[in-house]
Amino acid sequence: MKHPIPDHNPMRGQYGPAAAAPKHFALSIADGVATVTLNRPERKNPLTFDSYAELRDWFTGLQRATDVKAVIVSGAGDNFCSGGDVHEIIGPLTKMSMPELLAFTRMTGALVSAMRACPQPIVAAIDGVCAGAGAMMALAADLRLGTPRASTAFLFTRVGLAGADMGACALLPRMIGQGRASELLFTGRSMSAAEGHAWGFFNALHEPEQLHGAALKLAKALAEGPTFAHGMTKTMLHQEWAMTLDQAIEAEAQAQAICMQTQDFRRAYEAFAAKQRPVFEGD
Amino acid sequence: MKHPIPDHNPMRGQYGPAAAAPKHFALSIADGVATVTLNRPERKNPLTFDSYAELRDWFTGLQRATDVKAVIVSGAGDNFCSGGDVHEIIGPLTKMSMPELLAFTRMTGALVSAMRACPQPIVAAIDGVCAGAGAMMALAADLRLGTPRASTAFLFTRVGLAGADMGACALLPRMIGQGRASELLFTGRSMSAAEGHAWGFFNALHEPEQLHGAALKLAKALAEGPTFAHGMTKTMLHQEWAMTLDQAIEAEAQAQAICMQTQDFRRAYEAFAAKQRPVFEGD
Amino acid sequence: MKHPIPDHNPMRGQYGPAAAAPKHFALSIADGVATVTLNRPERKNPLTFDSYAELRDWFTGLQRATDVKAVIVSGAGDNFCSGGDVHEIIGPLTKMSMPELLAFTRMTGALVSAMRACPQPIVAAIDGVCAGAGAMMALAADLRLGTPRASTAFLFTRVGLAGADMGACALLPRMIGQGRASELLFTGRSMSAAEGHAWGFFNALHEPEQLHGAALKLAKALAEGPTFAHGMTKTMLHQEWAMTLDQAIEAEAQAQAICMQTQDFRRAYEAFAAKQRPVFEGD
Repeated sequence: MKHPIPDHNPMRGQYGPAAAAPKHFALSIADGVATVTLNRPERKNPLTFDSYAELRDWFTGLQRATDVKAVIVSGAGDNFCSGGDVHEIIGPLTKMSMPELLAFTRMTGALVSAMRACPQPIVAAIDGVCAGAGAMMALAADLRLGTPRASTAFLFTRVGLAGADMGACALLPRMIGQGRASELLFTGRSMSAAEGHAWGFFNALHEPEQLHGAALKLAKALAEGPTFAHGMTKTMLHQEWAMTLDQAIEAEAQAQAICMQTQDFRRAYEAFAAKQRPVFEGD
Repeated sequence: MKHPIPDHNPMRGQYGPAAAAPKHFALSIADGVATVTLNRPERKNPLTFDSYAELRDWFTGLQRATDVKAVIVSGAGDNFCSGGDVHEIIGPLTKMSMPELLAFTRMTGALVSAMRACPQPIVAAIDGVCAGAGAMMALAADLRLGTPRASTAFLFTRVGLAGADMGACALLPRMIGQGRASELLFTGRSMSAAEGHAWGFFNALHEPEQLHGAALKLAKALAEGPTFAHGMTKTMLHQEWAMTLDQAIEAEAQAQAICMQTQDFRRAYEAFAAKQRPVFEGD
Repeated sequence: MKHPIPDHNPMRGQYGPAAAAPKHFALSIADGVATVTLNRPERKNPLTFDSYAELRDWFTGLQRATDVKAVIVSGAGDNFCSGGDVHEIIGPLTKMSMPELLAFTRMTGALVSAMRACPQPIVAAIDGVCAGAGAMMALAADLRLGTPRASTAFLFTRVGLAGADMGACALLPRMIGQGRASELLFTGRSMSAAEGHAWGFFNALHEPEQLHGAALKLAKALAEGPTFAHGMTKTMLHQEWAMTLDQAIEAEAQAQAICMQTQDFRRAYEAFAAKQRPVFEGD
């Protein structure tokens, strides 16, 4: 008997987030890969109060999902995401009380936290405009594929705000270095795709017509991988953010010892001994 | 009434650092941009005990200054700064007691702390020699513009000292990566301008005759920006240095909620709605 | 009298690690440079339980060694290290209890900790295959020289494990950036030598026949440097990993004040005043 645990064990989620169709973004799930598509292409896929909240809840739900092993985040049409909508978000914010403002900024931050906390690797597929909160969603992904025309801007300063939004001052320096991050956050200028690739923001660039195929190939490979171990990799990249190196080494000793008792580790060894390619099952 | 606070409110500095002319470096202030020029060009602008102390005090004073919105740090002539003067600093240090030495290293470190603590973005304009404590002043700036002939060396090891000086072992790895930083700090070798640009130390390179114009243009743009928000960006880049990512996200939720109650945020929204360019006032 | 401390002072190690010839790797020491060579070239220099333990103990012993001022880590033949041996390590691990597994992962982590804790700068000379735990040994070095054909892979995921191994999730992001590190750790793909150089993993690339000469030249220069100060540089790069910047600045004020009371600092000043090249003695 493979799983001697009753099916109703609440720690083993039986329903993936696919169970509830989202209202404010498009979602498709196939072969363990969930594709989240921001889909108001006529407006370059802006975020709204509703889509922020629904994305936060959906990514939070991923922690219990069993039908999703990897995620693609993308935008409909030729753009990724234009960020918070000026009329639907910025206007109302100028009229809110401090508690309401903090509830908003905590909601947007919670989206980034949920994207970092879920065990599934997230691949962002980025074409065209990638701005503001959209750039932060890209930054919160684990891997980023772009196109030569992708233009990424952390443009909070352009609307009179700080570059400190959704974790930008922590995430961006670790991705591209403190000096480049400072320039992008203080000036709000666009980072070209070539810069983003040279600086380590983009893992690779593809032509627009090949972007989604490349993202799908990468996400499928991750979904076929040792997904329990991938989840541990993601957890440890997050956990070790502010540890000393010696603390991180001890944390990884424990994390990897756990992974060494998975069946996937045994499967890999047996496949290797038989000169075969391992087939991972995620346990 | 725009400011219902009495003019003598001690939290609102009425006098910028321009009020006191410095003795050991040149200073000019125009359009909210203060230009600090290390000016002993015949010696490649070395630092002395007096100039360290005066720079520390001047940058510390920036926290209360209302007439300075951005800062340029530069060197007179064709060089940025040759670091601590051998005869005026290194010689005397070899004869000091431990308490005196610690007072010195704390003073130099306090200059970096003051440059990081002031709310104004600092642009370093770097031509020619940029060495030792001069390289650390460059590193402590927010943005760095160089010239193709700029040569940067953390040459503490050449005088028998550790690469650990004024925060170098913390700042340099975050700017250019741990491996490159290790090489520069262990060997003391010069980093070429091309390396510095490719590695993210320099934000851009300009020909020598265009360096100061480019620095001024950048600093003016920052001075015209939402300066309260810029100060918050700078604070958060500093505050989040050793936070976990989730702590940083909460810290930014609070910081950005504060910025959303500024007039500059409202101004930006109203300008956008009127299809105009916002004019920020820093409150 | 130069050293008024009795020769039996236990804090002054009188015997370097050269005293005990290692069984599981080759070791030579000349001119203060110890060269560690992983030497099972017919198997691409894999690590075994025994070699892990012996390397950990040898690097731990470096903290007291007086005859070693810098270290080279290299592999015999055309490869650096293929990582943990599949038959000698992975097979047995699939049969171990949790306490045994944790003892193993702590032993491998302790090798990295020992490489970071010793005061001697470590230069890794990397040709050919550099994989798994071998890639981690490379990453744990202070400086890395490669060849155009060096191929580096953090391939833990390929055997069903997490990328979190021996501190990889902490060290790799600080070396090459969070995004590139995430790709290498999630996919296990090889990083080419050109990528490794562009990303800051390799400090330089050399042709295979020149690799060891270049590593020796670099290590000798470090061994001739102010070695007490080099040890402090290494300590501070490690200590400041998770400090705030202001804490790091204070830590460096203390560390550098200590170095300013060394004879090497005085020697450098006197050599400079006499227009000579300083000869450092490490005290």
